[in-house]
Amino acid sequence: MLLFADAQYTSPYAMSVFVALTEKRIPFELKTVDLVAGANRGGEYAARSLTQRVPTLVDGDFTLSESSAITEYLEELQPEPALYPADLKTRALARQVQAWIRSDLLPIRQERSTYVVFYGPSDAPLSAGARDAAGKLFKAAQALLAHGGEHLFGAWSIADVDLALMLNRLVLNGDEVPPVLREFARRQWDRESVQAWVNLARPPM
Amino acid sequence: MLLFADAQYTSPYAMSVFVALTEKRIPFELKTVDLVAGANRGGEYAARSLTQRVPTLVDGDFTLSESSAITEYLEELQPEPALYPADLKTRALARQVQAWIRSDLLPIRQERSTYVVFYGPSDAPLSAGARDAAGKLFKAAQALLAHGGEHLFGAWSIADVDLALMLNRLVLNGDEVPPVLREFARRQWDRESVQAWVNLARPPM
Ligand SMILES: [Ca+2]
Ligand SMILES: [Ca+2]
Ligand SMILES: [Ca+2]
Ligand SMILES: [Ca+2]
Repeated sequence: MLLFADAQYTSPYAMSVFVALTEKRIPFELKTVDLVAGANRGGEYAARSLTQRVPTLVDGDFTLSESSAITEYLEELQPEPALYPADLKTRALARQVQAWIRSDLLPIRQERSTYVVFYGPSDAPLSAGARDAAGKLFKAAQALLAHGGEHLFGAWSIADVDLALMLNRLVLNGDEVPPVLREFARRQWDRESVQAWVNLARPPM
Repeated sequence: MLLFADAQYTSPYAMSVFVALTEKRIPFELKTVDLVAGANRGGEYAARSLTQRVPTLVDGDFTLSESSAITEYLEELQPEPALYPADLKTRALARQVQAWIRSDLLPIRQERSTYVVFYGPSDAPLSAGARDAAGKLFKAAQALLAHGGEHLFGAWSIADVDLALMLNRLVLNGDEVPPVLREFARRQWDRESVQAWVNLARPPM
């Protein structure tokens, strides 16, 4: 398979698919597309990717964008090791986290872009809107982790990676984050498949 | 089951779940939460909904927010009639559309809110950013419908509703939309389950 990511390896969604492929030990080649130069909006990439975004997975003559659609595809293609919980309701809760992380908390995503995570902190303080979003994030994450376990849903799932990345926008920037969430984010960050993404060679800023 | 929607019935995501329940003929009660008054951010609703958004589905003692997680849950709970295509790759493409509609095309979602769809048109012209997003939307929708069929993926799927709603932000506002996409959006709008949502009694603005 072939996975397209952004040239700086900062896309949290490309990371999610990278981790999914790595966890499943599916061999893949990693290619990049230069979003900063707009290379995704034209030429071969735009012809291939319906949504002109990263990540895009190419599996033979099948091309698929949108990270959560890709991780669901990989799960159905090769169920083991699992990316999603086996239980119907628990799987629904993992999908809830994935969908939420991708469509809400915009002020955090804007003010703590993943450049903060992969290139270095920002010294701009959080706006009122971002502090409000952070409060909502902490409340939800604390509720999900109230069981005191290592992962969100018993065994590891792809939702752990997605939630940890959202938290790490704040943790790795030095913003205030409740200790139990800081520890969760660090634990998830230490995972081998995540470290393989973190340690990719990035071009200088 | 119990479905929470916004008090004006303008949430495209609540609509998507309403249509899913209706298509599957699962009996449900519809309740509203007043987003304008912030009723989702506190009290009983915030205690119930992890993400404090609509829609939220309550199934016995199980509570789930995020529309795409809910429609996947309903599909697994009661597979027939299907919301998603049966074929692995086609199902992935339907999920691609769902994920995309929920996380991209922000200028269209902002400048053509669903108040335009359910209450009446806006006379503000589209910004350059929204026109750019519309161009991207049209290109993708035309590619998906290049087969000339009635639905995106052979049989009807929940992705038809989601794409048609995004197109109808423009169509129903009188913005310029390619005829083949206008016709697709109108056809999907005429569907009985969609009309059941459209015809809900809305409070005056
Ligand atoms: Ca996605
Ligand atoms: Ca992680
Ligand atoms: Ca959703
Ligand atoms: Ca429709």
